[in-house]
Amino acid sequence: MSSKLFAVVAGAGPGTGRATALRFAKAYPVVLLTRKPESFQDTVAEINSAGGKALGIAADAADPKSLKAAFDKIKSELPGYKLAAAVFNVSAGYGPKPFLDLSVEDFDGSVQGNARGFFVFAQATIPLLLDAVSTSEHPPTLIATGATASIRGSATFATMASGMFARRALSQSLAREFGPKGVHVAHAIIDGIIDIPRTAGRTVNGGVEDSKISAHAIADSYWHLHTQPRSAFTQELDLRPFVEKF
Amino acid sequence: MSSKLFAVVAGAGPGTGRATALRFAKAYPVVLLTRKPESFQDTVAEINSAGGKALGIAADAADPKSLKAAFDKIKSELPGYKLAAAVFNVSAGYGPKPFLDLSVEDFDGSVQGNARGFFVFAQATIPLLLDAVSTSEHPPTLIATGATASIRGSATFATMASGMFARRALSQSLAREFGPKGVHVAHAIIDGIIDIPRTAGRTVNGGVEDSKISAHAIADSYWHLHTQPRSAFTQELDLRPFVEKF
Amino acid sequence: MSSKLFAVVAGAGPGTGRATALRFAKAYPVVLLTRKPESFQDTVAEINSAGGKALGIAADAADPKSLKAAFDKIKSELPGYKLAAAVFNVSAGYGPKPFLDLSVEDFDGSVQGNARGFFVFAQATIPLLLDAVSTSEHPPTLIATGATASIRGSATFATMASGMFARRALSQSLAREFGPKGVHVAHAIIDGIIDIPRTAGRTVNGGVEDSKISAHAIADSYWHLHTQPRSAFTQELDLRPFVEKF
Amino acid sequence: MSSKLFAVVAGAGPGTGRATALRFAKAYPVVLLTRKPESFQDTVAEINSAGGKALGIAADAADPKSLKAAFDKIKSELPGYKLAAAVFNVSAGYGPKPFLDLSVEDFDGSVQGNARGFFVFAQATIPLLLDAVSTSEHPPTLIATGATASIRGSATFATMASGMFARRALSQSLAREFGPKGVHVAHAIIDGIIDIPRTAGRTVNGGVEDSKISAHAIADSYWHLHTQPRSAFTQELDLRPFVEKF
Repeated sequence: MSSKLFAVVAGAGPGTGRATALRFAKAYPVVLLTRKPESFQDTVAEINSAGGKALGIAADAADPKSLKAAFDKIKSELPGYKLAAAVFNVSAGYGPKPFLDLSVEDFDGSVQGNARGFFVFAQATIPLLLDAVSTSEHPPTLIATGATASIRGSATFATMASGMFARRALSQSLAREFGPKGVHVAHAIIDGIIDIPRTAGRTVNGGVEDSKISAHAIADSYWHLHTQPRSAFTQELDLRPFVEKF
Repeated sequence: MSSKLFAVVAGAGPGTGRATALRFAKAYPVVLLTRKPESFQDTVAEINSAGGKALGIAADAADPKSLKAAFDKIKSELPGYKLAAAVFNVSAGYGPKPFLDLSVEDFDGSVQGNARGFFVFAQATIPLLLDAVSTSEHPPTLIATGATASIRGSATFATMASGMFARRALSQSLAREFGPKGVHVAHAIIDGIIDIPRTAGRTVNGGVEDSKISAHAIADSYWHLHTQPRSAFTQELDLRPFVEKF
Repeated sequence: MSSKLFAVVAGAGPGTGRATALRFAKAYPVVLLTRKPESFQDTVAEINSAGGKALGIAADAADPKSLKAAFDKIKSELPGYKLAAAVFNVSAGYGPKPFLDLSVEDFDGSVQGNARGFFVFAQATIPLLLDAVSTSEHPPTLIATGATASIRGSATFATMASGMFARRALSQSLAREFGPKGVHVAHAIIDGIIDIPRTAGRTVNGGVEDSKISAHAIADSYWHLHTQPRSAFTQELDLRPFVEKF
Repeated sequence: MSSKLFAVVAGAGPGTGRATALRFAKAYPVVLLTRKPESFQDTVAEINSAGGKALGIAADAADPKSLKAAFDKIKSELPGYKLAAAVFNVSAGYGPKPFLDLSVEDFDGSVQGNARGFFVFAQATIPLLLDAVSTSEHPPTLIATGATASIRGSATFATMASGMFARRALSQSLAREFGPKGVHVAHAIIDGIIDIPRTAGRTVNGGVEDSKISAHAIADSYWHLHTQPRSAFTQELDLRPFVEKF
């Protein structure tokens, strides 16, 4: 079995992306893709200084050319490596807004960032994942991060829900097409506020401890998904804090 | 109560759109929107010659400018009329295709035709529907036609499902935002082959009679949705032939 | 086409059952089944004095013997009549209660009243509905009334949700088995408070008009379900007041 | 932190139950409950001879008295131990049968075995799980094994689906009531044939390797559920072989 495997995380800013990179870096060299270098720099440095191997590349997952350039660079930087895991964690976040105040650009932005980006990322990674089926210890895995808006079109969340429903549609379709070929495609519904610096000021559930989701806990579940053997793939799971209403 | 009410059907080609126009024309003047005039001409003529009132306008629902021009024309042709019902029946059909054979344009085409078109149509019609709340006998209604691909991302249906999941997300979000304001937003999951000239050659379920969906039956259910009082709105229903597997 | 058709409504007390009986009585003789005669007496009298035909029978739908006796009586009272529509509207209501305060009897009561009752009722009516397939104008129909608890296991609603989830399971299974044989099996998720004398004192949504569901509106949707041709059956729809949160 | 913790598995016959017992025995003494001693004997012996600690008790989970006696015995055999994990894996399997051939006893049997059993088991274990919240390293966990029939009422599966839908309803309701109190309640939809001696003769997907679910893989996912911190609980996940149609 080849040990020349790597993982790639798109949307590797603070939170789920960073935690996932740290988690998968325990087993593989990890490539972090974000639009801006400052989003991945610290995590890349942290992994490399801790003895792991990380590579950051600035790229826009929704742009096929940008993503192609990123994967060309990966190929030259990690020659002969096969892709064991790909995580799409980009969040083109669109908060609540009255429907009649939205512009078509708001709609396009959510759909492009949240769904087309995953489409492009999947087209870039699935051939690589297929290529790793016979050598990877764990079935090659493509994980998409979802949200409450993936399964519920709430009032004033029209744009976010459109993009996230579409991302989930893609995830299901890919699971059904590529599962039988040995690639594990999974979707995680993250239902709650993630505990990151940006959300530090937000009080959830009266400030009860653990009422925000630990990004590291999400990463542990992603790692678990990756290690599932092909006889028992999970296509979808939810993750929420114990106090979250649902 | 004003009798100056009208209905608009986007995607009024043969099948559900035409049947819906015929059904709603029994009660209201009906505007048919399709991209090409030849798609609405016969239906418009049929309604007008039968004593009803129909108006056809060539427009692309996914294009805000095109749709705005269409509604400006409606305003001048039907001065003082309020909008009682709007049906979005556009189908930017994308059949099965292996995921790795798809282009980004395929993805964009489905999402724009199937979801952005509904977004634009809803932005054009909801203000008019809100304006009719106090005068329309039946609560003003916005109906979106869905499909199996609205709730299931089947293998090789990645693009169609992306667009249709997003359409359903919009429908839910709009129902939650505008229901309390008196506008009824509903979504119909059409699960089966519609019985229209184009599908005449397709044998379904061994050719058993009624194994394709009657477009007129869909139209009757849409009319029922429209007549529901605000104390009992249906947000979603499915429609399928009695022999359809599901 | 035979005009000798009848309908039966189980759980025909005030609210949905009574309204359904009144609605279907416009087309058919109607049999009302309730546990206690005082629950059907007024409705039966009202239908008969208005020129319709109604028959009330005291029976417990969850008890096979009691139900068999009821159908034997129907056979003798309506000789030669075939069953066009059967509505199961029994509500063995179990309100919220902390799980650890529940008894096994609470659980059994909900499951028996809400699910076993529908099982027994379906076993009694489906042979009769099948027998009417070739003579009934509208496809013979079996409708089950559901609730929010049919699709959501809320905190402290363990018993109610158990029975109602099971009722919905039955409805789906029967639709898939008997739809292809021409019997229409549908399930309605009633999401909200029904506007009946018993709920008059409950203020919903600040007392806004129409914020409770009209039982007559439910009955109209049930009638619509019944009149759907077999080319376009609805298996499930929801019904809720325009102001209801969902 | 107390190390005096134990786990209990109801329905610990071959397959998921046995594998779960073996997996949790790596961390805790494990109690196996089955109706017949011969169902747990080998597994209990295997765990004890490998240096773990296992206890088998013959009990019927659907019978409150029988289950109470079992937990009394646990208390005397494991004095001072707190309950870290409880797994309900009883399968009162009811295969396909035409609806009109079913008896009320078939219905009752499925509902009692599949749902009432879980109700009784949850009432026995939740107080113990609550009592372990402050001392268990991982949040005390109650896991219910589900199946395809938990979310789909297939034709001729009326009884099995009734019981399994109800089990899922209970799981959701318990998760919402006891999650905020620190007990993790999860439900796993096992979608496929489990690879056990009893199913050895059944060819699935043309006999492709790994086309049946490994019970040990299920057990690993159950262990993962148990180790999730309270900031990121999964309420539901699915598990199916890579080649399984869904």
